[in-house]
Amino acid sequence: MQSSTAHQMSSSDTRNLLVTISYVGTCFHGWQVQKNALSVQEVFQTALYKIIGQKPDIKGCSRTDTGVHANMYCISFKCSHPITDDHLRMALNRYLPNSIAVYDVREVDGDFHARYSCKGKEYVYKVLNSSTRDPFLEDLALLYRYKMDENLLNEAAQAFVGTHDFTSFCTMDNREKGDLTRTVKYFRVERNGNIVTFTVAADGFLYNMVRIMVGTLLSISQGKFKESSIKDIIDAKTRKAAGPTAPACGLYLNRVFYDI
Amino acid sequence: MQSSTAHQMSSSDTRNLLVTISYVGTCFHGWQVQKNALSVQEVFQTALYKIIGQKPDIKGCSRTDTGVHANMYCISFKCSHPITDDHLRMALNRYLPNSIAVYDVREVDGDFHARYSCKGKEYVYKVLNSSTRDPFLEDLALLYRYKMDENLLNEAAQAFVGTHDFTSFCTMDNREKGDLTRTVKYFRVERNGNIVTFTVAADGFLYNMVRIMVGTLLSISQGKFKESSIKDIIDAKTRKAAGPTAPACGLYLNRVFYDI
Repeated sequence: MQSSTAHQMSSSDTRNLLVTISYVGTCFHGWQVQKNALSVQEVFQTALYKIIGQKPDIKGCSRTDTGVHANMYCISFKCSHPITDDHLRMALNRYLPNSIAVYDVREVDGDFHARYSCKGKEYVYKVLNSSTRDPFLEDLALLYRYKMDENLLNEAAQAFVGTHDFTSFCTMDNREKGDLTRTVKYFRVERNGNIVTFTVAADGFLYNMVRIMVGTLLSISQGKFKESSIKDIIDAKTRKAAGPTAPACGLYLNRVFYDI
Repeated sequence: MQSSTAHQMSSSDTRNLLVTISYVGTCFHGWQVQKNALSVQEVFQTALYKIIGQKPDIKGCSRTDTGVHANMYCISFKCSHPITDDHLRMALNRYLPNSIAVYDVREVDGDFHARYSCKGKEYVYKVLNSSTRDPFLEDLALLYRYKMDENLLNEAAQAFVGTHDFTSFCTMDNREKGDLTRTVKYFRVERNGNIVTFTVAADGFLYNMVRIMVGTLLSISQGKFKESSIKDIIDAKTRKAAGPTAPACGLYLNRVFYDI
């Protein structure tokens, strides 16, 4: 009986945790564990193991590429260790490198999954529009030396908003299967001094989608495409129709949306 | 005759140049060349030599400590190479590491000296007032986890403004000789979200002066000194009366003033 009760307690004590972090992407080869390269997932797993002595299956909200940053990134995993949420947050901040910060640890419903429960995400792409680099934005923004009319680009980008097949804005690899339709909720291009920020939210993003969107808008800025060309590029449904993939360094996962 | 003319031309072609840069202080052991540590001056001299094949005596506007950043830093030197100002700016940006950027190169009067011609400077000290670190501000701001009332500190800091003997706000070493009187033109403490910025301008600064001023204001924030204590600390004329020296990582040389 005792043994059975202990087992029941242990089982009911397993909590599903949601951890919210931010990280500087330059320090990592993306989220996912891989051979011969340091990933955020690996560093997080190592820190977690040192604290709770367990190696739960941890789920990230998104695959992110090498060099892509996160102002907000969400992780979920099952935890049967009795540590409180706040102590776990503080311990993770001690054990993780300074390139990662943990903002929040909280218990969520048992069926919550950082990736599959996600209702949408917001990305930001930062461009330093200057003739000279900024040492404080090294690897944190794309340096773009030419004239850029943010109002013209903001107008052009409105063609992304809505539900479309985004095949033209997707790097094809074996990740992307099935339906390439996504719904873009908003797309804003704004200037603050010499920083031009591209902000886009969607229910989901294809591989390299934001970077190809930004690369295409930069091509419009350079006069390589017409302002009104986005609709035609979407309709073409081929990667070749769009502009280049903008570098990873300017991209930030900025918000992750859940119904919790 | 030819030789004499050539000599005269060469002499009249020696220009006095003012170069304006910014740099991330984390990457350097301050401005001044030293044994066994990389300084901004050494890196700048090396780049300049590669471009013009000369090693002029280069003057920096200020000694800065290890880890202190510069949004604006000024350098002057004599140059007899015929390179144009704009080409020199571009070449320096190519040869210097990405932690330094060159914004401007211009000819100035022959008697201009980056340090002695300086009429004043403005420093900024950045504090991240948050319970959690920000990976994007690592080594770029002081993390201060406690409650901070920026309006109270701004009030308290007004006692710094004016002409005072700042002995209490100076680390004594063999650098500081003679008169320790300086004139503080303004001192502002402002908040933008969780970033609290201390901005101070003066005709000159003693060694560690801004860092001790900020350290003393943080002591006021923690209740270790009264709000009204700055005047008494100035009057005490001893370093022991003031608070601790705030870390270098939050300090930025922000503006350098000249009459040109």
